Formats: sequence, C-alpha cells, structure tokens
Amino acid sequence: MADQRFFAKAGPFTLAELALRCGAELAAGVDAETCVVDVAALDAAGPEHISFLDNKKYVETFSRSRAGACLVHPDMAKLAPTGMALLLCADAYRSYAKVATAFYPPPPVVPGIATQAVVDPAAVIDASARVEPGAVIASGAEVGARSVIGPNAVVGRGVVIGEDCVIGANSSLSHCILGNRVAIYPGARIGQDGFGFAMGPSGHLKVPQLGRVVIHDDVEIGANTTIDRGAGPDTIIGAGCKIDNLVQIGHNVQLGRGCVIVAQVGISGSTRLDDFVAAGGQAGITGHLRIGAGARIAAQSGVMRDIEAGGTVGGSPAVPMSEWLRQAAALGKMARKKGR
Amino acid sequence: MADQRFFAKAGPFTLAELALRCGAELAAGVDAETCVVDVAALDAAGPEHISFLDNKKYVETFSRSRAGACLVHPDMAKLAPTGMALLLCADAYRSYAKVATAFYPPPPVVPGIATQAVVDPAAVIDASARVEPGAVIASGAEVGARSVIGPNAVVGRGVVIGEDCVIGANSSLSHCILGNRVAIYPGARIGQDGFGFAMGPSGHLKVPQLGRVVIHDDVEIGANTTIDRGAGPDTIIGAGCKIDNLVQIGHNVQLGRGCVIVAQVGISGSTRLDDFVAAGGQAGITGHLRIGAGARIAAQSGVMRDIEAGGTVGGSPAVPMSEWLRQAAALGKMARKKGR
Amino acid sequence: MADQRFFAKAGPFTLAELALRCGAELAAGVDAETCVVDVAALDAAGPEHISFLDNKKYVETFSRSRAGACLVHPDMAKLAPTGMALLLCADAYRSYAKVATAFYPPPPVVPGIATQAVVDPAAVIDASARVEPGAVIASGAEVGARSVIGPNAVVGRGVVIGEDCVIGANSSLSHCILGNRVAIYPGARIGQDGFGFAMGPSGHLKVPQLGRVVIHDDVEIGANTTIDRGAGPDTIIGAGCKIDNLVQIGHNVQLGRGCVIVAQVGISGSTRLDDFVAAGGQAGITGHLRIGAGARIAAQSGVMRDIEAGGTVGGSPAVPMSEWLRQAAALGKMARKKGR
Repeated sequence: MADQRFFAKAGPFTLAELALRCGAELAAGVDAETCVVDVAALDAAGPEHISFLDNKKYVETFSRSRAGACLVHPDMAKLAPTGMALLLCADAYRSYAKVATAFYPPPPVVPGIATQAVVDPAAVIDASARVEPGAVIASGAEVGARSVIGPNAVVGRGVVIGEDCVIGANSSLSHCILGNRVAIYPGARIGQDGFGFAMGPSGHLKVPQLGRVVIHDDVEIGANTTIDRGAGPDTIIGAGCKIDNLVQIGHNVQLGRGCVIVAQVGISGSTRLDDFVAAGGQAGITGHLRIGAGARIAAQSGVMRDIEAGGTVGGSPAVPMSEWLRQAAALGKMARKKGR
Repeated sequence: MADQRFFAKAGPFTLAELALRCGAELAAGVDAETCVVDVAALDAAGPEHISFLDNKKYVETFSRSRAGACLVHPDMAKLAPTGMALLLCADAYRSYAKVATAFYPPPPVVPGIATQAVVDPAAVIDASARVEPGAVIASGAEVGARSVIGPNAVVGRGVVIGEDCVIGANSSLSHCILGNRVAIYPGARIGQDGFGFAMGPSGHLKVPQLGRVVIHDDVEIGANTTIDRGAGPDTIIGAGCKIDNLVQIGHNVQLGRGCVIVAQVGISGSTRLDDFVAAGGQAGITGHLRIGAGARIAAQSGVMRDIEAGGTVGGSPAVPMSEWLRQAAALGKMARKKGR
Repeated sequence: MADQRFFAKAGPFTLAELALRCGAELAAGVDAETCVVDVAALDAAGPEHISFLDNKKYVETFSRSRAGACLVHPDMAKLAPTGMALLLCADAYRSYAKVATAFYPPPPVVPGIATQAVVDPAAVIDASARVEPGAVIASGAEVGARSVIGPNAVVGRGVVIGEDCVIGANSSLSHCILGNRVAIYPGARIGQDGFGFAMGPSGHLKVPQLGRVVIHDDVEIGANTTIDRGAGPDTIIGAGCKIDNLVQIGHNVQLGRGCVIVAQVGISGSTRLDDFVAAGGQAGITGHLRIGAGARIAAQSGVMRDIEAGGTVGGSPAVPMSEWLRQAAALGKMARKKGR
C-alpha cells in the first residue's frame, strides 16, 4: 500500500466498478462482485490487490504474480497464473491510470489564503482557490477557481492562472497566461527574459523581450524546467503537452497539442513543433526549425534540420532513424575490424 | 503591441530620434519627422510600427511586410516593399535592441524593503535598493544602489551585490561577490559547495570548498543555472558574460570577458575559458582544460582537449569543425552504402 | 586564506597533529612541531601553509611551490622543492580533505525555529534542529537532531528528515524519507510526481505516482537536481551516493551505495544502478536497465543496454570503452582520408 503519511486511499471497489471506470471487460468466469482494496505492482501484489501488465519485460513476473486481479491486454491473458481475475483492456497502462486514480483521488482543494502568504490587494484570487504560506502574488495577477498556489511560489504582475491549476512550491511565473488544469511542478521558471542579445566585440547588448508565455489547457511542466517568454511573438505551449523536468524551452518556441518532451531536452528559440511530437531525453533542437506532427526524436539527438510529419530521427547531427541505426552498425563493424 | 498587463510602453518617437538612438541612417527620401508608436515583428507590423530584418530566413516576410519603418542592413534595402521607411544600419539586431529599449525602458526601481522580507540587522542595504517580499538576507550581506532582490530570493552571509543588479525570484546566493549591473535570473544557484569528494571504496569524503564565486560587471546568469564556488581558488565569471538557463559551471572554472554560454552547457571544474568564447547548447567541457579566446564550440559537443584561440570544434569527442563535418559526411555515405 | 566573510578558520596546527588527523606519515627529517596556519593551493601557498599534490598536471607547480608543507604520495616525494615538509600519504586528496576540514570545520548548528518560518503545529522538529526564515514545514513532517532547514525551503506533509541533515535554501521535498547526514543543495526538487502518463492520441492520461523517494545516509544531492518519487515502488538513493547539480533521476530508479553521478546526467525510470557506479557529466541512461556494480559511464554517453559489473562504456549509443575509442579513431582516419 502507498505510504499513508503521503497518500489517502479510497475503496475497496468491486471488479465490476473498476472495469466500468477504466473501460475494461471482465474475462470469462470472473466474479464481478469480488472486491480489491488497492493497486500494487505485479511482484508485490497479493490476492486483495489489482495490478497491471504493460511492458513485455515483465511477462515472467506476471506469470508468477499473486495479484488477485490484473489489467491486461487480451493477447497476454493466456500467460496469467491460475486464479488471477483478468480485466481485459486495449491499453492496460491507461486503464491502470484510471483504476489507481479511483483508489488515490487527488486531494480536495481547501480554499483560503494562508496568513503567511503575500497577496497584493490588486490581485484577484477566486474564493475557491488556495494560496499556501510564503507564496507571493503581485498586482493584477488572477488565480482561477480551485487552483492551488504552492508554498513560496512567486506569481508576477498580471499573470493569469486558470481553473484547477497547481502551481508548485518555489516555482516562479511572470509574463504568462495559463489555461485550465495546468500543473507547474516545483522550481519551474516560466516567463523570464529569453536569451536575446545583439552579440558583438564591444559587448553583448540585451534585447527587450516583449512577448509572453501562453500555456493552454491540461499542460504539465516538470520540476526546474525553464520556459522563456517570447521576444516579440509569444512562446506557446499547446493543450495537453507534457513536459518533464529540467527542460529548456527558448523564446518564441511553439509547441502544438499533445507534445511529449522528456527530461533535459533543449529547444532553441523560434522552433515550432506541430501536434504530438515526442522528444526523448537530452535531445537538443536548434532554433528556427519546423518539426512536423507526430515526429519522434530519439534521446540525445541533435536536430539541426526540419523534420517532416511522422518522421523519426536519431543521432547528433540527427538523421532519419533507419540511417542512424545503419551508421551505428557500420561504425561498430569498422571499429571491430580496426581492432584486429 | 506588447501585453500592457506586463509591459509599459513609451513613445511615440520620430524616425530621426530613433535613428539617433540606435546609430542608424535614414535612407534617402525618408521623412525624419514621421512618428512610429511601437516595435513589431515583420509579419505583424503595420504602418505605425518599426520592425527589423536580421535573419536571411525572413527576407520574404520582409518583402511583404506592412511595417511603416524598418531597421535593415544597406545590402537588403533593395528588397524592401514600396513605401517602407528604411533605417540603414550595420547591425540591425543591435539597432533593434536600442529602439525596443526606447519604447520599453526597464521599469524604475522603487526603493524600499518589503515588510515581509527578512533582512538581518547586520546586512547593509542601500537606501535606493529594493527588497521584495519573502526575500531573506543574512548578516554581513551588502546590496548596492538601485539593486533589486526578488521575491523569496535568499542572499547568504557576507554576499556582496553591486549597483543596478537584479536578483531573480527564488534564486539563492552564497559565498559570492557580484559587480554592477549583474542579472541573476529566477532559480539560479550561485556559490554552493562544488562537487569535491575524495572518492574511495570506504566512502566518498567531502572536501571543504573554500573559494568563492566572483562575478564581474554586466553578467547575466540564466534561470535555474548553477555555479559552484571554488574549492580554494575562486570560480570567476568575467565581465559581460551571458549565461543561459540550466547551465552548470563547476568549481574553479574561470570565464574571461564576454563569453556566451547557451542553455544546458556543462563546464567541469578548473577549466578556463578565455575572452569571448561561445559554447552552443548542451555542449560539455571536461575539467582542467584551457579554451582559447574566441573559440566556438558547437551545440552538444564533448570537449576533451584544449582549444586554441579562435578554434571551432564540434562532435563528441569534439574535433575541429571541418573534421567533424567530414566525419558526419563520411559516416552518412558509409551508412547509405551498407543499406543497399 | 579563505575569505573571512564566508569562512571561519581554526588552527594553527602542528604537522604532527595534522598527520595524525589525516593518516599521513611525516617524511624523514620533518620537524613534527612545525606549525602551519592554513591550507593553500600549490601556486598560492607560502611557508606558513600546507598544500597537496594530487593531479599529475600540477607536478611542475609542485616543484616550484613555496608551500611550507605538502601532502603527497611517496612516489612524488623526490620532485619536491628543497625545504618543503612532506606528509606522505596513499591518497593526498583524501588526506587534504581531512586537513582542510580541521582548519575549516562545519559551523555549529544554532538550534531554533526562526519566527519567520512557517511550521505546522503537527510537525515534529527536534529541539537541536534549526529552521531558517521563510522555510515552510507541513503537518506530520519530522526533522531530526541538529538538522538545518534552509531559508525558503519547503518540506511537505509527512516528510521525514534524519539527523545532521542540511536542507538547502529554496529546495522542496515531498513524499520522501531521508536518513542521517543527508545534504540537499539549494533548489533541489525531491519527491514530486514522476513523468508517468498513459500516452494516446485522445490525450495523455496522468498515472498516479504512489511511491516515495527513500534517501539513505550520507547522500549529497546537488543544486537544482530533480528526483521524482516512485510510481508504485520507491525511488531509492543508496547510502553514500554523491549526486551533482542539475541531475534528473526518474521514478523507480534505484541507486546502490556510493554511486557518483556527475552534473546534468539523466537516469530514466526504473533503471537500477548497483553499488559504486560512476556516471560522467551529461550521460543519459535509458529506462528499465541494470547497471552492474562499479561500472563506469563516460561523460555524454547514451546508455541503452545493461552494463555488466565493472564495465566501462562511452559513446552514444554507448559501447564498451575500448570499442568507443576505436570507433573515434576509425572515424577520424576515415574523415581525414575523405578530406584529401
């Protein structure tokens, strides 16, 4: 069970109820009224738990698991141990997300402004929002319904935060507009000046950064990630984007809907990603590029050219994935030859 | 126009005045008394705006722009649309920086110490400085004229901050001395212990880090960047250096004047960069190296050897740029051959 | 001497006492009662200082040093300048760490809770602990003997902090359990949600992250480093691990004892490192891998496969070190041939 110092558990639930919530189908012979009390990993689960199989690496663990119930793709059902109640679903991980949320719903927001918060009289805080101790909110800022401003977070002048947002501890926001259900993780920095200088031997001259950061609905921005505001146009993060920790997003970058940006990626100024682009950890994308919808960028890639929609690339400088794999193979073969 | 919730605009200005401020020359036939009310990007500008052309990628946008006036290099003048008032200049981006600063000057510093700041009685805060709510300033610290300490920033014991500095929200400074006009962005960490351990199988023993971080005038240090203090000698950041977000600078590193360090670069301990070195995003430089003046390091490079003054390198491990390009070409050719 | 604004010096000490403290042996003819007043680098030291020689790059500086005394491996003794008192030791850097700590002991912890801290009545703070101004400590949190919670740090609900810990300024901890003598540097983020989403074209669904971060004794975690809590199992950092700045550690990662993780490394979810693994700066390790004890991973490597105990790898994708070196050599030769 999740540590009760940190998590409050709901339930138990019948398998019928969980199947309904997560869009799964009970396998033949499963008793719909069986109750489970918690989620657990395959190797830790007992008869009172529901688990899930998603990664083929864990098939053997699945076969030996003592879990009472399990979310699993129909193709894997035949590998289940005897007596395990199966909930069949197309995407076991997605179904698990819903089941786990049933057992561990997000805690309700307790409205109110902590006496130790510093809220400018000209800020507008919804009555259902919460402001934690040490948070500092400047004039003209707006905080929407049920949003939470974490301890020691800083919300700058004029910043707009929508409904049901969570602004993490020690994060700072300026020059930005947030939609609804946006989660900013601890230590993220949103809206500071972009890296704009007119370089020259007599000194690098700062260029005023006159844009904003516009973050659409359902975006998550990871811990200690930095997103600079636009230089003139805005920096834009499309709806449903998920951005991991320690990512750098330069001024004027535009992300379409549903992009997935893994930790430590860097995206240079004025580059545009269309919808549902995925970038692996530590990849770098140079400035002023266009990355087509659904493109996939391998971890540590160094992208220096546009990528067409649906393209996959790897390597530094990045090339189409198939070419990168051939490069690695050819290089390996050549090195082994030299070694003889 | 820049969002008035975040920016206060000055002006309008005549073209004569702007040309004077930015060192441009009015092209033949331009009416010096024409007024413009704001800056705008080429594709967004109207007759009342002044824009600029700097990147050749945007020449076509320039040719179709409705901007009333534009800063441009004389070589590009012939591509301008009819009726656009041209301000000719050697470096359009640099001139734009000055024009944009005329329209959007930095806001004046309002002196005072917020009641919710925590300032040790033995700290010395200039009467013209500003300390925002939640900032914590320890004993012996000094804050110079017109400097601003942002909300929830932490200034450690004995830290010296010069004049006209801006210390960002939620940043923390210890064991450091700052010159004038230094900008520390939100979340930057300056002066903590370097990564100094005497490694060994019986445990890694911490080595006291007895140096400081010394930051000279006109330096900018990006959001969530980390600069460790020296182990014995100081870590030194030369005048006019511009350091982007999420950069790591190890103990004892010395940067000369005017270095440009792009986001997510890492510089290991005791390496020295001479004046005006430029390092592209995500480059890594190993420890105890000497990088000559004006050297240029490509993004994602892995520098493992000294670089002579003026050298350019790329790749990991980094080699001279021309060699790196040949490597990439040869590898590509070989891979394509294998693929047949 | 270290800047007295930042450091308080003890001493002087006799060479006999220092030799005893650091496990060194006085070379023949050295006067055990000679006093030294401070540590200093080889090139800065005078007759009243003790220095050390550890890196062969500095042998020449050693030979010309004016240091009164020096910690040195016996093999190097013959290169010493005349009159220098040598303290012979197997590991000069380790001995230096002990000598420097004698001169600059960690400052004593002054117990007490600052009036400007915000400590929930249901938190348990040891009477010998210290809580700095602006720190926010939530209900159920525990802070052990002699631990220090830095200014504006945030300690979440139920977090357990052991004895003699130092929690840096502006850091934030949630969902985590810390052992004794753990140092969390400024701006580190421990225990936030991992990057867990069930991805899909209809939107990426957040998966509840129900584990913790468990940090064992004697761990150091660098500035602005991020460690996500487990998704179900815990994220575990073994005793004695030293983690540098700006490192990303994903959910469910397990580090054995004594791992050394250099700045800007990223370790993806569910990967396990056995004891004493060392990862160089900016290396990336993909998810669900097993890295054997004592493995060494070169800077900027991209590790995509398991590594056996004691293995050394480099390159991206990473290969055994010897193969990587041959690859680089072969590639360089080929590029030079093409260039002719």
